[in-house]
Amino acid sequence: MFKKVLIIGCGLIGSSILKAINSKKLSKETFVLEKSKKNISKIKKNKSNCRFVKSINSKIYDVDLVIICTPMSQYKKIIEKLNKILKASCIITDVGSTKKNIIKLKNKFLNKKLDWISSHPIAGSEVSGPEYGNKNLFLNKWCVIIKEKRQNLKKTNLLIKFWKKIGSKVVLMNPVIHDKIFSITSHLPHLIAYNLMKTAQDSQKIQRKNLIQYSAGGLRDFSRIAASNEVMWRDIFFNNDNIIKAINLFTKNLNSFKKIIQNKNNKKLLTRLINSKKVRTQIVQLKQDVAKPDFGRE
Amino acid sequence: MFKKVLIIGCGLIGSSILKAINSKKLSKETFVLEKSKKNISKIKKNKSNCRFVKSINSKIYDVDLVIICTPMSQYKKIIEKLNKILKASCIITDVGSTKKNIIKLKNKFLNKKLDWISSHPIAGSEVSGPEYGNKNLFLNKWCVIIKEKRQNLKKTNLLIKFWKKIGSKVVLMNPVIHDKIFSITSHLPHLIAYNLMKTAQDSQKIQRKNLIQYSAGGLRDFSRIAASNEVMWRDIFFNNDNIIKAINLFTKNLNSFKKIIQNKNNKKLLTRLINSKKVRTQIVQLKQDVAKPDFGRE
Repeated sequence: MFKKVLIIGCGLIGSSILKAINSKKLSKETFVLEKSKKNISKIKKNKSNCRFVKSINSKIYDVDLVIICTPMSQYKKIIEKLNKILKASCIITDVGSTKKNIIKLKNKFLNKKLDWISSHPIAGSEVSGPEYGNKNLFLNKWCVIIKEKRQNLKKTNLLIKFWKKIGSKVVLMNPVIHDKIFSITSHLPHLIAYNLMKTAQDSQKIQRKNLIQYSAGGLRDFSRIAASNEVMWRDIFFNNDNIIKAINLFTKNLNSFKKIIQNKNNKKLLTRLINSKKVRTQIVQLKQDVAKPDFGRE
Repeated sequence: MFKKVLIIGCGLIGSSILKAINSKKLSKETFVLEKSKKNISKIKKNKSNCRFVKSINSKIYDVDLVIICTPMSQYKKIIEKLNKILKASCIITDVGSTKKNIIKLKNKFLNKKLDWISSHPIAGSEVSGPEYGNKNLFLNKWCVIIKEKRQNLKKTNLLIKFWKKIGSKVVLMNPVIHDKIFSITSHLPHLIAYNLMKTAQDSQKIQRKNLIQYSAGGLRDFSRIAASNEVMWRDIFFNNDNIIKAINLFTKNLNSFKKIIQNKNNKKLLTRLINSKKVRTQIVQLKQDVAKPDFGRE
């Protein structure tokens, strides 16, 4: 499919893409640019088929596809380097979780002769690092590809084909809608989980009780989500301005929830709980999760 | 261990206790009082060894242990009936999730010659009903037994022994501390999950987009918790007055989280995310969850 692919940043997502490329034979040669020595030795242990490069330099001027898998805060620096070496036929993509600001950034700084078509595979975990890399990470998961007004159609179709080959279900979205949707389905839930952990820690100090040992009743499940990589999530919270609106809506609902409880409004509370349960049914129907009940750790 | 046990309310928890009693041979005879015909036929399908009774009546005056597994809102009615028939040697317990109000209720209404020692097994799931009953539901899970100032020591010890035999780790707590701890580790997380579902539903209406289909990025995990039984959770939210304090602390933290994002305070945000991640490490160390990462549905 490609002669030469370059993966910049090889953590959980980058290494999973690398493994998927190798497994599906999607590139004759795959280059990896990874700054962390620890990660490099982990990738070597994995015996992934790739060649390491130390910087974005003229040796890799003729790559066909660049996939940027670093935290988003590094994109600007990377763009400046890519501008100097890449040939016009190359496709650049990224896997960042917010899109409006990425598109703005690349439209401002990327050399006009180059094509960056942004991707967002909805896959991952609370763990990071190439030791968790998995060729099936993207299997049957959504991959959003960003559609701009002017965009190279041939390259877009090639990128769609690439994500499909590694198992994704592809959907095209404009960056503004992307950021709105994922502010609710992903960014707000993570922020809420982090906030719940802080609240539990504060309560533990106030109560002077080791309450976390009794966390099996709910706190446990949120703690997993709140264990996600902090640099990635800092970048997301700073780059999706819809998160403030999402927090405001959440707070408004929380205040009315509180009032219902304080007023012991039986009917309103039951209605609210029954309605909220419907999301679960939808999620299972939409195959976003399995119906199998969870009884805790095994 | 007992001659006759009576289980009142035989959903997920009641049927799991029934199966555990049968499996460990903890009672010569076990009676089940269950109002739902559907549930009765499910229990019969399970082939659990038990005898069904239709009401609290003189036929079961000589039971040694009564375990109340109904929603808490039914306790008062049950107490009035138990008062009329039970003999003084009996132990009454319940599995309710809040304790201060239960203790108040039983101290006000239960016949003084009877002993009610309250239990709270920290086990369950988002599903309800006897079809999910499991003899191992309590295995290695906490069971809180409520300690009051005046309490029959012999009966308390027998109840401790009972929960240990069906696999629980027992801890004694006073009802006020119980309610404080579980307002944070269980009740607040559930309320937050319900609130997140409502916020997603509201956003879906505002955005006019089917965003729930992209819920794999975080919403999915909360939806499971927000699928729990509404009657049980109404009773919990109405009966644990610490929940209001917990909501207030959560809101305070959420407001400061919002400000950190709005001010793009890099250092404060990273510190907050890193600190919140520590809860996960503690939870895994305390064996409340396994460390195995989650990559979504299989």
